[in-house]
Amino acid sequence: MATRKPSEFQLIERFTSAFRLEGRGVVAGPGDDCALTRPKAGHLLVSKVDQVVEGVHFTAAFRPEEIGHKALAVSLSDLAAAGAVPRWFLVAISLRDGIGAGFVERIARGMSRLADQSGVTLVGGNFTGGAQLSIAVTALGEVKPKEALRRSGARPGDRLLVSGVLGEAALGVAKLAGGRPRRLGRSVLAQLVPVPRVALGQVVGRHASAAVDLSDGLLADLGHLCARSGVGATIDRAALPLGPEVAALGPEGALLGLTGGEDYELLLAVPPRQVASLRRAAARVGETLTEIGMLDERPGIRVLDASGRPMALPGSAGWEHFR
Amino acid sequence: MATRKPSEFQLIERFTSAFRLEGRGVVAGPGDDCALTRPKAGHLLVSKVDQVVEGVHFTAAFRPEEIGHKALAVSLSDLAAAGAVPRWFLVAISLRDGIGAGFVERIARGMSRLADQSGVTLVGGNFTGGAQLSIAVTALGEVKPKEALRRSGARPGDRLLVSGVLGEAALGVAKLAGGRPRRLGRSVLAQLVPVPRVALGQVVGRHASAAVDLSDGLLADLGHLCARSGVGATIDRAALPLGPEVAALGPEGALLGLTGGEDYELLLAVPPRQVASLRRAAARVGETLTEIGMLDERPGIRVLDASGRPMALPGSAGWEHFR
Repeated sequence: MATRKPSEFQLIERFTSAFRLEGRGVVAGPGDDCALTRPKAGHLLVSKVDQVVEGVHFTAAFRPEEIGHKALAVSLSDLAAAGAVPRWFLVAISLRDGIGAGFVERIARGMSRLADQSGVTLVGGNFTGGAQLSIAVTALGEVKPKEALRRSGARPGDRLLVSGVLGEAALGVAKLAGGRPRRLGRSVLAQLVPVPRVALGQVVGRHASAAVDLSDGLLADLGHLCARSGVGATIDRAALPLGPEVAALGPEGALLGLTGGEDYELLLAVPPRQVASLRRAAARVGETLTEIGMLDERPGIRVLDASGRPMALPGSAGWEHFR
Repeated sequence: MATRKPSEFQLIERFTSAFRLEGRGVVAGPGDDCALTRPKAGHLLVSKVDQVVEGVHFTAAFRPEEIGHKALAVSLSDLAAAGAVPRWFLVAISLRDGIGAGFVERIARGMSRLADQSGVTLVGGNFTGGAQLSIAVTALGEVKPKEALRRSGARPGDRLLVSGVLGEAALGVAKLAGGRPRRLGRSVLAQLVPVPRVALGQVVGRHASAAVDLSDGLLADLGHLCARSGVGATIDRAALPLGPEVAALGPEGALLGLTGGEDYELLLAVPPRQVASLRRAAARVGETLTEIGMLDERPGIRVLDASGRPMALPGSAGWEHFR
């Protein structure tokens, strides 16, 4: 069955019909030149754009709903790392030939489900043609000035805590390389439908001194945080919370936990006196945090093995998605 | 000379170095997970994402600086149509192989020049790989609630006024089809470096009842405004302000003025008692407005020729950029 090329108007109709377009603070959503929204007085506006691209962040193994979910999830994860309450989002979609309105509607459905769970409202967007499918999401949120988390706020002595488990999304890439498996295990699901830590993001600002979300891998993102804060870090390899399928791989699994990207967990720097209260606040929103090391004044990142000796680290800690 | 593939970090460094990163209301710009900005109390946040894609919105005839300019211009134009003061913007860039850091820096320089002229500050962005060069810009602005312009506010009896001249950008596409000409005339420049009506956008909200920016062509965008406002329109063809190169084409030029896209002028619906004061306000910011018709209760759009007879209109008024 041939896919008739839908008009931009049809695409907008099909896409927006999957969303609840009324939300708190929304004065005008899709349909005008711009969105009009009402920020809370005295709050800072938090904004982030992120983009997922066919062949880089998703492949033919992804269902359209999963592409939509992931496109929104990666931006919401950034807002969580800023300690923000996510409010609104805009979507710019570039479509290649062969992607019809039905596919677009399924992208929208996956995105809409996560939007409802996260309390964010679609307020604008844009469709254009192109050579490949790509989706850029701009997420907008709010935060009280004192609770805004930056990468630069960490201090020597802060403890390093991480949400969830590590390495699963990277293992999922390997498992998806041969196509979509019949049975989707934890790692494949972590890659297909990563869960942004939205509720956790709304409580960390009162306790942490700095945060970053893990998109490039623990070592790479910790490196960004250390560089911006002017600190170094020591990690206890045995403390890393690896997913069960990752842990089963042994030393190779530990490496995935250190360097694998796209976990979208939160890495938090927390003053020692705040650790217990942060754990209680996290538990109230159903999240568990694992302490994996601490920050110090010595530049660089050291990973200690089970006997307390520094491990040799891979030269490049950067994560390259599907590349 | 081969282009060495730059790292994401190098790209961000080169790109952001072209911009002034401090601006009013900016608490944290590029370098963190999110931008933090301080909206004015009691103002609405105005947001819009727009995307330009290689082969669709620009071709090899464009210099990198012009690509950067155009990518920002199209979003600022939307903010102007909302009556907003533009404040901040975010940029998501997808780069194909063969585009190096030098090209990216030139994109940034063109964008930065327009940003300075328009009073907007870069606060965030994202780079990713892909099959083609595309740039999505999310522009953020502010507007007093009473001065926010929507497409839906027009009423029968409102006069239709348009800024600048029409049809030049579309004629520019034709002139660029054979490559970049030696001497760049008005039409080619209108296509390469469209000027968003930023200053005009900040005065129209006190006078107009509705507005739209002309990206798809006069008939198409007027159609959107009429549909959202539940009105019809009558246009006087002889009143259309055509660019000199467009007017020289005769009837074909008039058709370009009616249907050609990417002029990025503002089309305003204005209550009759507000027309004179709007013209004075526009003159104070150096802009001239032309009255081209009026809105009425009869659905649809009619274009009257010099003798007052309705013209036959092209079946599809949609503009397809470089397609």
